[in-house]
Amino acid sequence: MSMLTVMRTVRIEWGDCDPAGIVYFPRYFEYFDQCTAGIFEAIGYRKPALLQTYDFAGFPVVDVHANFRVPSKFGDDVVVHTRIPEWGRSSFKVHHRLMKGDALGVEGFETRVWVARDPARPGGIKAQPLPAELFERFRNG
Amino acid sequence: MSMLTVMRTVRIEWGDCDPAGIVYFPRYFEYFDQCTAGIFEAIGYRKPALLQTYDFAGFPVVDVHANFRVPSKFGDDVVVHTRIPEWGRSSFKVHHRLMKGDALGVEGFETRVWVARDPARPGGIKAQPLPAELFERFRNG
Amino acid sequence: MSMLTVMRTVRIEWGDCDPAGIVYFPRYFEYFDQCTAGIFEAIGYRKPALLQTYDFAGFPVVDVHANFRVPSKFGDDVVVHTRIPEWGRSSFKVHHRLMKGDALGVEGFETRVWVARDPARPGGIKAQPLPAELFERFRNG
Amino acid sequence: MSMLTVMRTVRIEWGDCDPAGIVYFPRYFEYFDQCTAGIFEAIGYRKPALLQTYDFAGFPVVDVHANFRVPSKFGDDVVVHTRIPEWGRSSFKVHHRLMKGDALGVEGFETRVWVARDPARPGGIKAQPLPAELFERFRNG
Repeated sequence: MSMLTVMRTVRIEWGDCDPAGIVYFPRYFEYFDQCTAGIFEAIGYRKPALLQTYDFAGFPVVDVHANFRVPSKFGDDVVVHTRIPEWGRSSFKVHHRLMKGDALGVEGFETRVWVARDPARPGGIKAQPLPAELFERFRNG
Repeated sequence: MSMLTVMRTVRIEWGDCDPAGIVYFPRYFEYFDQCTAGIFEAIGYRKPALLQTYDFAGFPVVDVHANFRVPSKFGDDVVVHTRIPEWGRSSFKVHHRLMKGDALGVEGFETRVWVARDPARPGGIKAQPLPAELFERFRNG
Repeated sequence: MSMLTVMRTVRIEWGDCDPAGIVYFPRYFEYFDQCTAGIFEAIGYRKPALLQTYDFAGFPVVDVHANFRVPSKFGDDVVVHTRIPEWGRSSFKVHHRLMKGDALGVEGFETRVWVARDPARPGGIKAQPLPAELFERFRNG
Repeated sequence: MSMLTVMRTVRIEWGDCDPAGIVYFPRYFEYFDQCTAGIFEAIGYRKPALLQTYDFAGFPVVDVHANFRVPSKFGDDVVVHTRIPEWGRSSFKVHHRLMKGDALGVEGFETRVWVARDPARPGGIKAQPLPAELFERFRNG
């Protein structure tokens, strides 16, 4: 639906790199997670506010896939391009492309589910239809 | 009061090390935090159970100090010796010595406060007297 | 080739969990990375020694996929079952199943490449055939 | 010598927070480490370039102290004020104040040593006098 793409510059920090001097691969998923929060923020929904407004409990990842083409190293400034290529009723897909200059460094794909607290089970969560105004905002964002 | 000392072996993992090949120093505080949980577990109090039993909200660190003498590197197995040298009414001190063989690698000092949820402020916490049975257990542990 | 499966118990630590009280998903990849190192250790090859013996520069991940079925929370003890279902000439696949009791919590798939330092490019690395004795050990391990 | 103070805004990310919803304290040391790199960058020395120019091997922390006054939570934007209150011959102190609005949230103190590779010991490092032009830049920065 939306072709909104949000770009975010990420500085590769010392503590994100391993003894080989390159990004320790789980850190890429942290960058991507921040970028997913960022695309919601770009249309006016900061995640902390979402958590309060909708009795929303987050959009946990249920499936993730990444391929690593060009390593990034300490001090690199890379740019992550994030978009949401597909919306379901209570889930959505996120596509991240981490660019190192003109080269595609890492490509990541997330499937996330919109969840709310489950009144039937203390501490439990359950999938929930995505709020309609979100689509509106993405369509117009 | 208690001179119970708990020892925990820590394997230095690839992802805990930086491009210099040694432990990225904030990771030492993660090890120490796990060791603090470990000394409570050693006397029979696992932190998840504590969180449920006492309307306890954790024992956040209010002050921490560490000095770093000998770096540890990927693949090292180090041993952390943890004890609680001082108890206050609602706070306690923790002392960690990370040993690399016979050498003292890192020494850490934490001051922690015992907190509970504050009914007066949603989402707030407040210091709380330490449960008396804890002392008993530490005295006998 | 090998059906050697290595099991490793992982304690879910406080610092691995997010405000929803469950494991922050990038941490699972850290667990899996440690388990991959663990399966080599199980046949007698600790990664630090490998790094010295073979002018080996690691086995970076080139592709990773995971699906998340049952969340794990602070204090859980989970068991990761790791095996290497497929060997290529200079790459191999790793399969991780993180079990929460009898339930499959997370399933992870890594494709890794065996790399050595590239004498032609300072700081560079290149794929390298896997040492033959590794297969032998896995076959017999 | 220098009263240069560098300010850096830090967004508190989901993955930096613990099940209590506040920053997991070792993460503060990661923020501070990035701010120390930032103050060098502010006078024209990016750490990756330093690592190449000076056969410099980093400025590892030998002593760190922090006190935690006001917790920060997911989504907060805090500002870290960093300065270098004291220079030694081969070491220096760094002072960080993490401000949450007008409130001092966390105060951190680092002592760091300037190290170079030690030609006498492969893989070893040794303290080294700080380059004179650094002082000049800080004095004029």
